[in-house]
Amino acid sequence: MSVGTGPVLSRALQILDAFSSERPAMSLSELSRHTRLPVSTVHRMVGELVTWGALERDEHGHYRIGLRLWEIGSLATRGLPLRERALPFLADLSQVTREIVQLAVREGTELVFVERIAGTDSVSPVIRVGGRCPLAASGVGLVLLAHAPTEVQEEVLHAPIESFTPFTVTDPRVLRRMLADVRTSGFSISDRQLTTDSLSVGAPVHDERGTVVAAVSLVVRHGSASPHALAPLVRTSARAISRALATPE
Amino acid sequence: MSVGTGPVLSRALQILDAFSSERPAMSLSELSRHTRLPVSTVHRMVGELVTWGALERDEHGHYRIGLRLWEIGSLATRGLPLRERALPFLADLSQVTREIVQLAVREGTELVFVERIAGTDSVSPVIRVGGRCPLAASGVGLVLLAHAPTEVQEEVLHAPIESFTPFTVTDPRVLRRMLADVRTSGFSISDRQLTTDSLSVGAPVHDERGTVVAAVSLVVRHGSASPHALAPLVRTSARAISRALATPE
Repeated sequence: MSVGTGPVLSRALQILDAFSSERPAMSLSELSRHTRLPVSTVHRMVGELVTWGALERDEHGHYRIGLRLWEIGSLATRGLPLRERALPFLADLSQVTREIVQLAVREGTELVFVERIAGTDSVSPVIRVGGRCPLAASGVGLVLLAHAPTEVQEEVLHAPIESFTPFTVTDPRVLRRMLADVRTSGFSISDRQLTTDSLSVGAPVHDERGTVVAAVSLVVRHGSASPHALAPLVRTSARAISRALATPE
Repeated sequence: MSVGTGPVLSRALQILDAFSSERPAMSLSELSRHTRLPVSTVHRMVGELVTWGALERDEHGHYRIGLRLWEIGSLATRGLPLRERALPFLADLSQVTREIVQLAVREGTELVFVERIAGTDSVSPVIRVGGRCPLAASGVGLVLLAHAPTEVQEEVLHAPIESFTPFTVTDPRVLRRMLADVRTSGFSISDRQLTTDSLSVGAPVHDERGTVVAAVSLVVRHGSASPHALAPLVRTSARAISRALATPE
């Protein structure tokens, strides 16, 4: 099948996988350590990845993800085009509330943040854009989980649920009820489930066929606003984005 | 050196390279045609790229760039982190003007748009985010070219300059004077040089060492506003972003 082909490509992808927001720049030896590949192999691969632009070498001799990879990555259907259509509405929501506004999609049993606009004096976000997070704890996550296929919901509800704060809901029965509430009410509330000082309210974004493709949330400091006052704002914004997605460009 | 390694990896990169905003989705045979690789080779490579998440297969059996590549690409130093720091200020500029706001960086002798917020009733942008454009014609491009290393400026000025409209400046002597003006005044004006109905005003974003790392622009319909009235707005926004870049997170 892939005799002789698989290993080379998979090693290159292993090198790319070694980068994360915690490790955005690495030397050859660090790359070798994190990929468990010999330095000579890493050196050869990295040379080619730099030539193509997947990696860049900075002034300290460290390697970073290159702009070319960002350009190609920006073609991801569910990444940037969704983001571009949503951005004016997210900007409106951010301007009106001055709080953190987020847009996320589901990837398996996790969520990926595709956009975040930081408020001017809002709480600090925990996860960066492009970062992942389990579905059960956040406002966007609860929306995405509530509208995920049954098998995804069951997978999440049958696995141990990660606890972030004393308020994180980890009982699958309670979570099941919360998900049903999200579907009925059209919004989610994550009250200090991810950090002890924040509350987030999420709402679903639909594509033209009515499938939930993303979720929008507002993140505010716990105690600064009632979730029921924020919900209409988030829901309106999510509906405006859904409408924009259904309109041909 | 890279005996047996080079071809495999470079073929995989060739496959990624075949995707563009004009061709975001391709069948196996289209990928084979655009990469000039045999269908069997493409099939094998694509399988591995799908497993890793660099590509995704849609409901029509076409391949698209996957969200995993977007996630990794979002780590590009000059791509997303700059964008995230700049976004609240770009959103402010967009809200105040209701026009197109753009953020771009230089990549060799071209520019790459890292962000765009569409205005509500603004002119249509020509190039998408992640897209490239020559430096000489646009507001952001003139700023990036004016502050590029001498060898980059000379390379651009000695090559034939692409003409987009009857107003595109293609005379290198005139362009040289325009670049000097940009450095003196702190802003650029591209008056119908890219499309016949648009005018853009650009200003430089500096890093903490004073190096120009990006440019911001406002794009308006030609005749709707004076560039000299827009310049203070764009310059203030660019300075706010520079200040944010110099402030530790």
